[in-house]
Amino acid sequence: MSTIPNRNQPAATRKPREERWSEILTVATELFYQKGYEGTSLQEIAERLGIMKGSLYYYIRSKEDILFVVLNEAHKAGLERMTSAAQVEGTALDRLRAMIIAHIRSIADNVISTAVFLNEMKSLPQESQDKILGGAVNYPKMFEQVLREGMEEGTIRQDLDPKLTATIVLGSLNSTHRWLHPERHGNLRKVQDHFTRILISGLASDGN
Amino acid sequence: MSTIPNRNQPAATRKPREERWSEILTVATELFYQKGYEGTSLQEIAERLGIMKGSLYYYIRSKEDILFVVLNEAHKAGLERMTSAAQVEGTALDRLRAMIIAHIRSIADNVISTAVFLNEMKSLPQESQDKILGGAVNYPKMFEQVLREGMEEGTIRQDLDPKLTATIVLGSLNSTHRWLHPERHGNLRKVQDHFTRILISGLASDGN
Repeated sequence: MSTIPNRNQPAATRKPREERWSEILTVATELFYQKGYEGTSLQEIAERLGIMKGSLYYYIRSKEDILFVVLNEAHKAGLERMTSAAQVEGTALDRLRAMIIAHIRSIADNVISTAVFLNEMKSLPQESQDKILGGAVNYPKMFEQVLREGMEEGTIRQDLDPKLTATIVLGSLNSTHRWLHPERHGNLRKVQDHFTRILISGLASDGN
Repeated sequence: MSTIPNRNQPAATRKPREERWSEILTVATELFYQKGYEGTSLQEIAERLGIMKGSLYYYIRSKEDILFVVLNEAHKAGLERMTSAAQVEGTALDRLRAMIIAHIRSIADNVISTAVFLNEMKSLPQESQDKILGGAVNYPKMFEQVLREGMEEGTIRQDLDPKLTATIVLGSLNSTHRWLHPERHGNLRKVQDHFTRILISGLASDGN
């Protein structure tokens, strides 16, 4: 659930305002996806919601505030799934496999917000990007961590740089947002299966 | 070299017009990259070139004409490199390796036009997309072809769907446009090396 930045509303009206806020985020995400962040105005967001543009300022100070929340929520939601996947029993290679499967699932369920996350992060000032990505836990660090663990325990090949490899693996998985579509979810299992076969064979040490 | 759609100019003025056209494409590509296609106006393209907006209509009928040429050129240029790489001597696995190396090089040399190609293809009508991608040769088909050949000759594992695998490999390589930057080209060799190690081990049949 998303947090409303301006919380000075009376308690009695809180529910509908939270619903409205959630609608604003959904509509803004769709418009950012279709037209890009730069190409979307607050006026258009208001129009699509059937409200006055001025009403938006009850929730935000600027279009950038909306983008920040959209990207922050997308990041947090995906990380939660990944974190549970990373706790699976077994070797680091097993954890890596579970993380790959979870991340593809997460992208398939959130194709549009994943696209906005990947394409529009650059539209935020560096400070805001750091706020979203700079926590103790983030995607690249999680992949780098499991790769390092696998290299130490001997299940993952040691001739690779874990940081660059994490970037490559994560980028490869993220690239599926371009062609994974909710309406073609029948293929999700096949996609997960192909990714794990290719990447796990590509990253395992001999005999693993 | 790009083709000027409107060719009715007198021969004497051809050279400067070709230069101008090339400038229009460069400036438009940069703006589409920074602000998105939707977020960029012909007015801005003209302003950045220091010309009147009206002068643009000497070259194009609409902003969409520019996008079409930008994407078509990007596609053709990359395909040429890939085609030479695909002609390397050896097994299909060797050819796949050469194609991976060539494609990463090509992306590193054209980070901005690659990003515009990947992000803005959806902004063109389907018919124009088909014109660009629908030729006898295109990226996905080239990767699918070499994978099929490797499966037949036994150098590439046979438990994968060649079409889906081609999509995965190409998407993985393309995802590097997000973090491969011309100023960090010192790392290009390392990136190519990591991709080939991971993908070739991931795709080779046992013993290859």
